[in-house]
Amino acid sequence: MKWAGRGCVLLNPYWSDPLNRMPRRTSHRAPILSVLLLGAGLLAPEFVRSQDIADAYRDDANRLIDAALANHDAYARLGELVDLFGHRVSGSVALEQAIDWIMEQMESDGLDNVRGDMVMVPHWVRGEESLEMTLPRPRSLPMLGLGGSIATPVGGIRAEVLVVSSFDELERRADEAQGKIVLFDVPFTNYGATVQYRSQGAIAAARAGAAASIIRSVTPYSQQTPHTGNMEYADGVRRIPHAAITVEDAEMLHRMQDRGERIELLLKMNAQMLPDAPSRNVMAEIIGSEFPNEVIVLGGHIDSWDVGQGAMDDAGGVVAAWEAVRLMKELGLRPRRTVRVVGWTSEENGGPGGSEYARMHAHEDHVLAMESDGGVFKPLGYGFTGSDAAFEMVTEIGTLLDRIGAGRIMRGGGGADIGPLMRTGVPGMGFSVDGTRYFWYHHTDADTLDKLDPDEVALCVATFAVMAYVVADMPVRLPR
Amino acid sequence: MKWAGRGCVLLNPYWSDPLNRMPRRTSHRAPILSVLLLGAGLLAPEFVRSQDIADAYRDDANRLIDAALANHDAYARLGELVDLFGHRVSGSVALEQAIDWIMEQMESDGLDNVRGDMVMVPHWVRGEESLEMTLPRPRSLPMLGLGGSIATPVGGIRAEVLVVSSFDELERRADEAQGKIVLFDVPFTNYGATVQYRSQGAIAAARAGAAASIIRSVTPYSQQTPHTGNMEYADGVRRIPHAAITVEDAEMLHRMQDRGERIELLLKMNAQMLPDAPSRNVMAEIIGSEFPNEVIVLGGHIDSWDVGQGAMDDAGGVVAAWEAVRLMKELGLRPRRTVRVVGWTSEENGGPGGSEYARMHAHEDHVLAMESDGGVFKPLGYGFTGSDAAFEMVTEIGTLLDRIGAGRIMRGGGGADIGPLMRTGVPGMGFSVDGTRYFWYHHTDADTLDKLDPDEVALCVATFAVMAYVVADMPVRLPR
Repeated sequence: MKWAGRGCVLLNPYWSDPLNRMPRRTSHRAPILSVLLLGAGLLAPEFVRSQDIADAYRDDANRLIDAALANHDAYARLGELVDLFGHRVSGSVALEQAIDWIMEQMESDGLDNVRGDMVMVPHWVRGEESLEMTLPRPRSLPMLGLGGSIATPVGGIRAEVLVVSSFDELERRADEAQGKIVLFDVPFTNYGATVQYRSQGAIAAARAGAAASIIRSVTPYSQQTPHTGNMEYADGVRRIPHAAITVEDAEMLHRMQDRGERIELLLKMNAQMLPDAPSRNVMAEIIGSEFPNEVIVLGGHIDSWDVGQGAMDDAGGVVAAWEAVRLMKELGLRPRRTVRVVGWTSEENGGPGGSEYARMHAHEDHVLAMESDGGVFKPLGYGFTGSDAAFEMVTEIGTLLDRIGAGRIMRGGGGADIGPLMRTGVPGMGFSVDGTRYFWYHHTDADTLDKLDPDEVALCVATFAVMAYVVADMPVRLPR
Repeated sequence: MKWAGRGCVLLNPYWSDPLNRMPRRTSHRAPILSVLLLGAGLLAPEFVRSQDIADAYRDDANRLIDAALANHDAYARLGELVDLFGHRVSGSVALEQAIDWIMEQMESDGLDNVRGDMVMVPHWVRGEESLEMTLPRPRSLPMLGLGGSIATPVGGIRAEVLVVSSFDELERRADEAQGKIVLFDVPFTNYGATVQYRSQGAIAAARAGAAASIIRSVTPYSQQTPHTGNMEYADGVRRIPHAAITVEDAEMLHRMQDRGERIELLLKMNAQMLPDAPSRNVMAEIIGSEFPNEVIVLGGHIDSWDVGQGAMDDAGGVVAAWEAVRLMKELGLRPRRTVRVVGWTSEENGGPGGSEYARMHAHEDHVLAMESDGGVFKPLGYGFTGSDAAFEMVTEIGTLLDRIGAGRIMRGGGGADIGPLMRTGVPGMGFSVDGTRYFWYHHTDADTLDKLDPDEVALCVATFAVMAYVVADMPVRLPR
């Protein structure tokens, strides 16, 4: 259904919902009156709907918030998940075992329609890898091959190093790059800009004739922490191995080059791209009491990189959404529409989980898609992509989250997994959190449970729960 | 010489120093008059000496500060040192090569009496080591053996794990520890308290019958960063291997135990304690123009642990002191007394460098000993140990550092390397810095040049230079 202005609203069958199913309220008589008038078609809905909805749901929102903050259940469940299975890279046994476990737990939570939609996912395997500095003095450098990279020859690639600060510098110095290992020592500015060297570095280095390519890890902070992540090759450009080293070592090699020292590295990788493997988008629901075919979907991605525990990225997002839905169940808050928690698979390896979800569920009527993939740190609110009318409505619902500081709704937002769905016209929301340290841990061995705070995780549960529940239950459907 | 009050001062031959050698001043006539009167014995020295000294040296102090802040020479030299030689553990070739290089550089700086005093130092070699979690699921855990630990048998020690939070808990659960690997999961409170588990953990665990002992690394912050450091055995107590794991993994193992899971680890270490090896305390001087036998000694320790670059701990302290002395030379500021920069050896392995220095130089007249071993971060001032009269004087000299925020002189301070000298009655000062992140990097692979800021290193040079120069040059000797 499309949102087409006031006239359409008055014709919207959802407005005919019996008003006695509105949440019980104990104050704010005037808004109740507005809702009554609105329900009777006597008041312009643009004028009253948002404030009224917020007021009408204040008690339920507070119950959800109080329940979420009452304990650290979400954190405990997250800890169990990541301790039991560790990291869960696309194609791995650990990922599928984690999905099995989640489905069992969702069943025992009493959620509806627990299932795993089969999705074929890339299956890149890191294997053994190492990087040795052989000149000017021997030292083993912490490193991580980048996801999708080819292997080196069995004996490795031993070559002199050319350090550059940018693609531009590589172009200017292309005649020096032939046969060398090119190191992109590019300080972190923002993810979008700096990650270009991870995704495109091997292509640029190969074009300049390099034997292999290495990046400075994409992070503003390091404790000798290499970061992995996806990378690309281009048709018609020779494929060369591509890996990341730490900020510390990238700067050291750069200083050595600046001093005129000759640097030689020995890179060994035996990574392999295996045939695509079966995985699953894991999901469960509370079936809507009145409009079961209208779906509010919320979640994160259940896969991770093959390092750390993938606790922040993104088990936390999945568990916060899951716990939000479980809390509705526990509190007996069954919304009019269906709420569905999803753990999308293989976000880190091209996102087939999100694409397949959109394809397999295209026949369904999605009202809103919500995603947390920025770490379940202190939530600030949401970024929203949708119509002005919908933005106004979710902004007002956001005021129910003001008491926990999570009510800020900004324009623009979504996520990699809900992107394909959003491109079909479904409004989308992405969690907005205090991301100060997100890139410190992103795609590293340091992405572990302890980086998350139990209270902040609980706040994320509350943030998911309130927005999802109100949008799922409110008399008016969130407009497109 | 001992400081014995006012009468003594007036008899002190240093006061007979010609006043025309006092630094040229352009303002503050009254203090000049005080110095004149003081020099003539007409004014009580307690009343005027400190303020007068500060005023008299303001121009020289500003010259030193300006010169220190004018460039990043100290940072560049520090980078060269740590990049050329890497970490420099007691007994290693790298340490001796670094000392050779420093001596060459000190010679080329034109400093006096460049030399290395031979010191025999412990020679512990880490060798190969690893820690595997075999139950409840296989995972390799980042670890570092602790300095001085014995090896495991060749096949390693495979044993169940008992996690405890304190020595007390271990005592209560001693009957569960037999034959196990004991893990001390003790969160960082302060170094003095928490480091007890590193130094004494193997003794306590062996007494409880454990096969090996492991600690949570001594740090408030981790990115899967294991920390090494020294440890002890006790006579009559069985020696067992002792290693550190990361905060992340200590917490994970603790959670697993709390959930009732059986944890098994396989620890392999082939560390060896070799015979003591020759090393050197490296030093150079500007010989005092008037009292060459009175020595102001300043420095840090040139050895490090066998990880990272030992840039913060403590190449930075050595280089800041060295650069402070070199700047005096460059500016033509030759003080009345001798200033001596020292890089003490093997501080990390029991401190024979500091002890031997005190023994070998016991015949010399040390006026003041200064040390930086808390990282050359933003300097705040000094901690001082000495008489009230001396404290008053260095406090006043400290005001010359107020313009760079480094003038705060607190009671109490010194350092491991100057400790033996201080115990003979020599006043001592330890650098006080913003140590917020010191223990993030301490004894880890993350102790690298980039953790230090070029401007802050320059401020440390200035802080060393001003205090050392004024104490070395002022007409009155710093009292004991």
